[in-house]
Amino acid sequence: MSALPRLRVGIVGLGRLGRRHAENLAQRVPNVDLVAACSPVDEELAWAGDALGVPNLHGDYHAVLSQADVQAVFLVTPTSLHPQQIIDGLLAGKHVFCEKPLSLALADCRRVEEQAARCPQLKVMIGYGRRFDPSYRDAYDKIQAGLIGKPFLVRSQNLDMNDPSGFFVRFAPTSGGIFLDCTVHDIDLARWLLGNPKPSRVFATGVVAIHEGLREFGDVDNGIATCEFADGKMACFYASRTMAHGHETLTEIFGSAGRLTVGQNPRLNRVDISDAHGVRNECTPTFYERFEDAFLREEIEFVQSVLEDLPPALTLHDATEATRIGIALRESLQTRRVVEL
Amino acid sequence: MSALPRLRVGIVGLGRLGRRHAENLAQRVPNVDLVAACSPVDEELAWAGDALGVPNLHGDYHAVLSQADVQAVFLVTPTSLHPQQIIDGLLAGKHVFCEKPLSLALADCRRVEEQAARCPQLKVMIGYGRRFDPSYRDAYDKIQAGLIGKPFLVRSQNLDMNDPSGFFVRFAPTSGGIFLDCTVHDIDLARWLLGNPKPSRVFATGVVAIHEGLREFGDVDNGIATCEFADGKMACFYASRTMAHGHETLTEIFGSAGRLTVGQNPRLNRVDISDAHGVRNECTPTFYERFEDAFLREEIEFVQSVLEDLPPALTLHDATEATRIGIALRESLQTRRVVEL
Amino acid sequence: MSALPRLRVGIVGLGRLGRRHAENLAQRVPNVDLVAACSPVDEELAWAGDALGVPNLHGDYHAVLSQADVQAVFLVTPTSLHPQQIIDGLLAGKHVFCEKPLSLALADCRRVEEQAARCPQLKVMIGYGRRFDPSYRDAYDKIQAGLIGKPFLVRSQNLDMNDPSGFFVRFAPTSGGIFLDCTVHDIDLARWLLGNPKPSRVFATGVVAIHEGLREFGDVDNGIATCEFADGKMACFYASRTMAHGHETLTEIFGSAGRLTVGQNPRLNRVDISDAHGVRNECTPTFYERFEDAFLREEIEFVQSVLEDLPPALTLHDATEATRIGIALRESLQTRRVVEL
Amino acid sequence: MSALPRLRVGIVGLGRLGRRHAENLAQRVPNVDLVAACSPVDEELAWAGDALGVPNLHGDYHAVLSQADVQAVFLVTPTSLHPQQIIDGLLAGKHVFCEKPLSLALADCRRVEEQAARCPQLKVMIGYGRRFDPSYRDAYDKIQAGLIGKPFLVRSQNLDMNDPSGFFVRFAPTSGGIFLDCTVHDIDLARWLLGNPKPSRVFATGVVAIHEGLREFGDVDNGIATCEFADGKMACFYASRTMAHGHETLTEIFGSAGRLTVGQNPRLNRVDISDAHGVRNECTPTFYERFEDAFLREEIEFVQSVLEDLPPALTLHDATEATRIGIALRESLQTRRVVEL
Repeated sequence: MSALPRLRVGIVGLGRLGRRHAENLAQRVPNVDLVAACSPVDEELAWAGDALGVPNLHGDYHAVLSQADVQAVFLVTPTSLHPQQIIDGLLAGKHVFCEKPLSLALADCRRVEEQAARCPQLKVMIGYGRRFDPSYRDAYDKIQAGLIGKPFLVRSQNLDMNDPSGFFVRFAPTSGGIFLDCTVHDIDLARWLLGNPKPSRVFATGVVAIHEGLREFGDVDNGIATCEFADGKMACFYASRTMAHGHETLTEIFGSAGRLTVGQNPRLNRVDISDAHGVRNECTPTFYERFEDAFLREEIEFVQSVLEDLPPALTLHDATEATRIGIALRESLQTRRVVEL
Repeated sequence: MSALPRLRVGIVGLGRLGRRHAENLAQRVPNVDLVAACSPVDEELAWAGDALGVPNLHGDYHAVLSQADVQAVFLVTPTSLHPQQIIDGLLAGKHVFCEKPLSLALADCRRVEEQAARCPQLKVMIGYGRRFDPSYRDAYDKIQAGLIGKPFLVRSQNLDMNDPSGFFVRFAPTSGGIFLDCTVHDIDLARWLLGNPKPSRVFATGVVAIHEGLREFGDVDNGIATCEFADGKMACFYASRTMAHGHETLTEIFGSAGRLTVGQNPRLNRVDISDAHGVRNECTPTFYERFEDAFLREEIEFVQSVLEDLPPALTLHDATEATRIGIALRESLQTRRVVEL
Repeated sequence: MSALPRLRVGIVGLGRLGRRHAENLAQRVPNVDLVAACSPVDEELAWAGDALGVPNLHGDYHAVLSQADVQAVFLVTPTSLHPQQIIDGLLAGKHVFCEKPLSLALADCRRVEEQAARCPQLKVMIGYGRRFDPSYRDAYDKIQAGLIGKPFLVRSQNLDMNDPSGFFVRFAPTSGGIFLDCTVHDIDLARWLLGNPKPSRVFATGVVAIHEGLREFGDVDNGIATCEFADGKMACFYASRTMAHGHETLTEIFGSAGRLTVGQNPRLNRVDISDAHGVRNECTPTFYERFEDAFLREEIEFVQSVLEDLPPALTLHDATEATRIGIALRESLQTRRVVEL
Repeated sequence: MSALPRLRVGIVGLGRLGRRHAENLAQRVPNVDLVAACSPVDEELAWAGDALGVPNLHGDYHAVLSQADVQAVFLVTPTSLHPQQIIDGLLAGKHVFCEKPLSLALADCRRVEEQAARCPQLKVMIGYGRRFDPSYRDAYDKIQAGLIGKPFLVRSQNLDMNDPSGFFVRFAPTSGGIFLDCTVHDIDLARWLLGNPKPSRVFATGVVAIHEGLREFGDVDNGIATCEFADGKMACFYASRTMAHGHETLTEIFGSAGRLTVGQNPRLNRVDISDAHGVRNECTPTFYERFEDAFLREEIEFVQSVLEDLPPALTLHDATEATRIGIALRESLQTRRVVEL
């Protein structure tokens, strides 16, 4: 093994999250060379060159695909671009990692699945990063080991700190709504932790607690949902954009012999403060502080799956199912009916 | 105040919970004389006389009502007897404390309300004891003080430790089902903490995780429910009879400026154990260890409301609403539909 | 058992803590009649008569002792009075419960022990109430059951919320110093939990963090101490008067197979708050909120020990040992030397 | 900045901890090239070549120093070798990172300090890694920001899980004893968090709870110590090798306006288990799981201090002081006296 195999990758999209992926790929993921970066924003490209030393900088995605030494692309682009960019990447012979969700439209999810099926030698993975978080992984392993008997119910929630500026209200027309934007993570976790059961019907509802501007888009800032599966298992979801204390991703798995809880208290770190406010801990302000390590690990696992020709930890079908259930939740919210799947 | 006013009470029902009430009334509630006890079981009556020194022992409820010096009765009897026993107590001129629920039938709830309206000088209170727990009281006070802004969502759960003997399956035909037996507590809490909003519609579902015998009664051992209120607020409920760790009553109140959580970890006491199992604490095995103090406080408050002619902390209408919502949840579970109220 | 035996008691001292004892004896301790109260303050006596209905009110301790129907006295008086009052009570044929500490002077402790030895039919107990707290009792029982193997180290601390008025500085000349005033509780706990080993040597030191006025009395507002026992076991103590978050009594017992911790987080109740300060809980402001239940239980146990002629849960010798070790700690602090016992 | 500056380093020592450092330097520390590895064990060298791709493999430290392109060495060697290896590294013109402790002998510490003073252009840092842990860093920053007022007391403990094989007993003759082996970390933390006060006197004692073999070396498996500083501040230490639950590093900083606690519960991750054992979490088995991130960060900071010519986060004098206080603690344990510094 004196010549260690390495993977040459290009990063596509250098926004807030894209920069994080780029830094990891340049500095922390073993056996990777970040050989290309792509963004329509000149300043972002300049940063990639200066701070990370990326040698090839492109304003256009197809220029990345044309770069022969690029073996894999990391797509951190707007959701609406995901399906075609994945397909184009596959057609260009590149392995593809793409941030979640796969798409907001089921037909597009399936188009991507079909193209991927035609390229079995290429790896495609959608970045449902919570699966790579060490605590979630530990919970999954404990379930597999039988620690809680037979799991029958997952409750999972994705609570974001309130942004008083209401920035995300402007994003509402394209976000797909709270369930497709936030709850897809919980949907993916529930399916994974329950053994990939088939969904049978869903019910969703919600409240506008603060951001009245969401009403015109049929959206809410606090959404509640229930999903039943064909095998009798269940999942309950809660998503919120109005928390005061920080970002909180919390998942409980109930089994016939015990319960696992992941993320009970969204501690920022191991510091407790005892003062006039009581005994307290600060919280992770955003999902990034909570899942910083998971992002790194999903990158490492994807690279490893390519270098060692292993199946990725989650399939395109998983990503399609998350979108499918998310769409059903939105429909239930908007029609006020139970939706059969 | 040299002659402190005292209340003479009779306890009716000396089963597991009745004995607890009797002990409290005999030994811990100030300004009370427990002057009568009633049970169809001779051994229970003998215990009341011997261990508590109750002077008058009756096998029949009407004998208690005929005892002229009895001013108030505490009914800890089967739910099916509650409505008529309350009405009879009122007709006999007695104040009435009755364990929850008021009744499983809405018509009976209303009959009791009507009789009580005819006796405005008599106090009637149904024992939704969680309201008297110091932690729940503190949460209520904090909400009133505005600590979490405007509350918009309550999530509340009532999880019982699994009884492998499945005793409660035999009780299923008369329990009213998991929502009327367990979730009524959470319904009452949600209404109280959210300011008594009117329910508008509910959805419920559930799983049989362990106790297959429940299926024939249309019941489940894990039930999930959502209740929407006319003012846009919401409540989510979870009830379980299959926990491994103990009894856990947990309520979260989400407001526009913060969240309160009551009962996060159902600690038995202040002891932590660090050993080969990790760092851990034991849990309250049943609701009684969790709410022992609340039982005492509800008795004290009821006695005080009689002695000082104050309105009881919760009204018969509150109890009727809990039953009404509970019935709607059961209907939703069994019809698999959203139920409008 | 139709005529339940009852104990007739007198309360002596109606200051802050005396009133608490009086209320418990009047209203919460079973099988007790509070038939006398004693205080030099007229308003306190009037309260005992009006609010508690105590029939006999005395300005002088000897009047209580002369009251023939008084079988037991509860002394909640200044420490300097304890030894003679206990002796006088015994000479008058009364059982005696006395608040901690027994005395600040070892000779007085021994005088009391000698008098008590002459009255074996009378019960005497010093109120080291932490032993009656359910969590401490549970820890003790777990140790006895072998859960942590062989215990070898106790660390115990008694932290009080800072009183910015510095009231206790004025009390410093008679308090005996921080170790005799606060740490005696921890000393008593350590001896009890470690199986009453003999102390062999101690070392103590401390800091004046806030209250400079303590220096002139050779006292500190934060004291640290180590106590070694003849069998090789050890105890570490920390006492503070300067906390910001509340009262915290915390005890850890380390054994060869595990550790028990009592009181890790001095939670006021089961409420957690999630807001801009993080996730937090409020704390018990004083020892009383923490040990309210323990006070009641120690009273119940003392009454029971008299009524059923059982040995009290802790002996006069235990109280003497707590004082003896406390004096050695003070000596070590003031002489800056290791003190052999 | 198109050509980012990089540092070429050699790792010396490839034992358990050396391999961790090597992996980090090869794969996770930005701007570093691991160009040499040194070990007397052939298998270890082979691993460095095969798994990490290190190009130059040496059996002898001086061969590393002779390698002209090596700019810095990382020493993860037995403590007894540290002083001379550091001096030799400096004489060879290399920057030096060395695992803690600097030395067990004060004279050697000073020799190193003197040599370093002659080479002001070279960076030397001893790996007291806890300072680089994000939680400790956060606590330090909060103290600097005044959150707890004036800090006056640090309590810090370093508890290791019991190794039933008693392996470390064989290591006892060269470890320097529990205070120099374990408590040096806490000493360094206390000095750092309290603002580097001068120690004035110490007292230490201890227990052999399990490993009787330590007695012949004058060592204990549970050590307790107190350190007073000239400015009146204090520190208390506890070190243990006999825990059942895992590794626990816990530090409390008490200030005039509050307390910070780092590491209250040595949680392995964010998973809670609710089962027949209660509610529990697993614990970090060794210091490495607890401080894995801190090791990486200290390496990053050291590399950055070299590349950007910044003073290292901690000085050789800090390391000397830790050894000096550790020696005093051992002396106090063995002489049973208070030791003045």
